[in-house]
Amino acid sequence: MSHTKQFTLYSNQGGPNGWKVVFVLEELGLNYDTVYLDLAKGESRSPEFLKINPNGRIPALIDHGNDDFIIWESNAIMIYLVDKYDPEHKISAAETNDKYHQLQWLFFQASGQGPYFGQAGWFKLFHPEPVPSAIERYQKEILRVWGVLEGVLSKREWLVSGKCTIADLSFIPWNLAALKFLMKDYEGFSEESFQKDFPAVNRWHTALMSREAVLKGHAIRAAVNHA
Amino acid sequence: MSHTKQFTLYSNQGGPNGWKVVFVLEELGLNYDTVYLDLAKGESRSPEFLKINPNGRIPALIDHGNDDFIIWESNAIMIYLVDKYDPEHKISAAETNDKYHQLQWLFFQASGQGPYFGQAGWFKLFHPEPVPSAIERYQKEILRVWGVLEGVLSKREWLVSGKCTIADLSFIPWNLAALKFLMKDYEGFSEESFQKDFPAVNRWHTALMSREAVLKGHAIRAAVNHA
Repeated sequence: MSHTKQFTLYSNQGGPNGWKVVFVLEELGLNYDTVYLDLAKGESRSPEFLKINPNGRIPALIDHGNDDFIIWESNAIMIYLVDKYDPEHKISAAETNDKYHQLQWLFFQASGQGPYFGQAGWFKLFHPEPVPSAIERYQKEILRVWGVLEGVLSKREWLVSGKCTIADLSFIPWNLAALKFLMKDYEGFSEESFQKDFPAVNRWHTALMSREAVLKGHAIRAAVNHA
Repeated sequence: MSHTKQFTLYSNQGGPNGWKVVFVLEELGLNYDTVYLDLAKGESRSPEFLKINPNGRIPALIDHGNDDFIIWESNAIMIYLVDKYDPEHKISAAETNDKYHQLQWLFFQASGQGPYFGQAGWFKLFHPEPVPSAIERYQKEILRVWGVLEGVLSKREWLVSGKCTIADLSFIPWNLAALKFLMKDYEGFSEESFQKDFPAVNRWHTALMSREAVLKGHAIRAAVNHA
């Protein structure tokens, strides 16, 4: 495949995880082409794409500046990008101990936020039969995760090293989905109840959402979703 | 708390994720004390433990040799341990590109294997009402994850860098749970069908299970579960 940019990002308009990578690419001013796969048409399970990511999921990234190095799993991609292209630690921890805490929060996001918030979405949108108790299980888990974040962010501005890092950025897409959609019908939940019950999470999420790179990422997302 | 060993591991007899850390500690010959938390009694949500891990989950590790450094999330702990205590790369990737692929597989395990295998367990054991379609959803996901691993492991012996690393070790506990329990009642599934449909995964899992450190970890697990 011919390319004029350093990176090729395989992503999808709707899914949350490709946008994490966009935030990092934009934060670091890196240049990239995006290939949007049509998941409904099975393009993430095509033989061609499975050679890039045998898991058949987006995002995946090719770094043409590093001998076409291929990496997938959004949080692994984020770490790869800052390790290689954020030498001044604009959005990454610089100290050794902080790096492991950055890693710890990225694993919490990947294992504790993403899959559980995602299951709330699955049972609301795609499951063949209505299972209210499953939706409730995952909505309660959203509240639990926000409670964990509230406990930490009420004592400090950012998750690690006193500044916005990839650990913080990784939480944006699923928190956005939860606020816009996943929690909408949960009894007693509203924008106001969120702001009252999770003031630190609200302050943090709002600060993340107003970052230039995140605004740019969301502008791209809006454009491709209405194309 | 007084301690005579370098590490204190907070774990639980039954849960899968503490054992990953045990495998790494045993592989590297590190000395540690284990504190087993009684989850049913809420010991992972005690104020004392929440100071160690605000997520209220096991495992968490304190490294008394590094100024009582605290880290949680099992895969972050595994990476911390090999970065600091596996200078000869006995169970970790040595080359830079391989390190990112090791990280990628660890994120796949944390986000793609653990939570989905865990949901099969949840709906089989703990959900307040029977939801066969949910159990089936997660059992099918177990088969999908094994299919991804089969595709890769049919072409190479280990996930990364031609040897057993923490990436491989991380998959043991949930694969074991799936084989022993989670898939038992899935129509057409048996030990024989697993060996026939996933010969490379079977070969790999069997090799992992026979490692000295893994045998030792499982002997400890059996002992504390029958104490």
